[in-house]
Amino acid sequence: MKKEKLTIIKVGGKIVEDGSALQRLLSDFSTIDGRKLLVHGGGRSATALAARLGIETKMVDGRRITDDSMLEVVTMVYGGLVNKRIVAGLQAAGVNAVGLTGADMNAVLSVRRSVGVVDYGWVGDVRIVNSDAISTLVENGYCPVIAPITHDGKGHLLNTNADTMAGETAKALASRYDVDLVYCFEKAGVLFDENDDSSVIDEINPCEYSELKKSGKITGGMIPKLDNAFSCVAAGVSRVVITRADLIADANAGTKIVG
Amino acid sequence: MKKEKLTIIKVGGKIVEDGSALQRLLSDFSTIDGRKLLVHGGGRSATALAARLGIETKMVDGRRITDDSMLEVVTMVYGGLVNKRIVAGLQAAGVNAVGLTGADMNAVLSVRRSVGVVDYGWVGDVRIVNSDAISTLVENGYCPVIAPITHDGKGHLLNTNADTMAGETAKALASRYDVDLVYCFEKAGVLFDENDDSSVIDEINPCEYSELKKSGKITGGMIPKLDNAFSCVAAGVSRVVITRADLIADANAGTKIVG
Repeated sequence: MKKEKLTIIKVGGKIVEDGSALQRLLSDFSTIDGRKLLVHGGGRSATALAARLGIETKMVDGRRITDDSMLEVVTMVYGGLVNKRIVAGLQAAGVNAVGLTGADMNAVLSVRRSVGVVDYGWVGDVRIVNSDAISTLVENGYCPVIAPITHDGKGHLLNTNADTMAGETAKALASRYDVDLVYCFEKAGVLFDENDDSSVIDEINPCEYSELKKSGKITGGMIPKLDNAFSCVAAGVSRVVITRADLIADANAGTKIVG
Repeated sequence: MKKEKLTIIKVGGKIVEDGSALQRLLSDFSTIDGRKLLVHGGGRSATALAARLGIETKMVDGRRITDDSMLEVVTMVYGGLVNKRIVAGLQAAGVNAVGLTGADMNAVLSVRRSVGVVDYGWVGDVRIVNSDAISTLVENGYCPVIAPITHDGKGHLLNTNADTMAGETAKALASRYDVDLVYCFEKAGVLFDENDDSSVIDEINPCEYSELKKSGKITGGMIPKLDNAFSCVAAGVSRVVITRADLIADANAGTKIVG
């Protein structure tokens, strides 16, 4: 039986911090036909709130160390402010959105990352995405809007990487939908030259990715994003693209990730 | 056709600020059989966060003046921190909870209160509770956990009184369910003497309420709570009780509101 299409958009970076860029994204998102789902990050807004509260932000390899105070901050910012602004914005654009953390409907269950060289604190690694719960919403006409907070099933909330949330959600839903996963942010895609938005790589396969990493052309936050993207392709997600937020409706824009 | 029973618990005041009292409440709530729904306030936690951020809290007649900064605070605290703590706590207690503001699923649509003598800012008065959306969740086995934030359908979130949210939700659902509405807080019910928890009034009707208001026995925040409660009885809510948070499972505790 032919599967129904489901479009998953992941938005993060500066887009969620910038009111007008976010409005534009939500407006473009509202024009996407059919079943859809949005996963968002929080950009630097959690760091900004933490600073106002006198809480120091500590990052290791781009991941936030999440002690009790920082967990409160990310729960407030990602689960509250950012998520509800997006939901209200989508409702105004005619999309019947419903905000979720992984705790809601037990949608995404994680385990606290074990303490190795670094103790990340209340950081969760995704174990189970509850595709039944998410598809119940989708099949009833709702558009889930997922914040990067999960839970451990024992009452603890856990800070979870938003790219990973999007990837794991896409993989879990790939068995019942023809999933189109679009990572969007402020750059035009995977770039040969990170300062030149016209140097977009149209398509990238695992072999090319490996070469580009070795040559130092791909670094930093792009690496976990691409690792997620490749694992999605391998797990049956139909189409994975990394593109600029204002081009999500353009099927030819950005970098296509291929197996 | 006999209606299914739906229990709606409203929790507010000091209970939501106190970790162990909240845990106890969630544990008691988890023992309630059948369809159920929780509406929560935020207690003084929004005021506490506002103070830490250097934002002044202004109240008029017990209602919070909600400017842009205060709307961010209540969205973070009610929609984020308090709501997600409750949801994660209920999941741990075996209740498949899903947190909602009024924006989520367009569950509760409000209008911004018009400026009269006082400009309350981003404060919403409930217009429509979307009983279809809420009952879709309930009938699929989920327990909605509703935060006192609504939206206007035009992209604005609105701060909304939690007692009113509970009352309006109960009324809207009374056409399809046999609704049991329990307002719980730190006192034993409606008291003859507000400093004596043993002076609970077992049952109160509109005539007695009017007399008690006139004699100054009932004052302050109890008045809007009772106004809500009486309007629910008049609108077909089967049973309305005001009781102490640790007694929600005791059918004989608290003050019963009768028509």
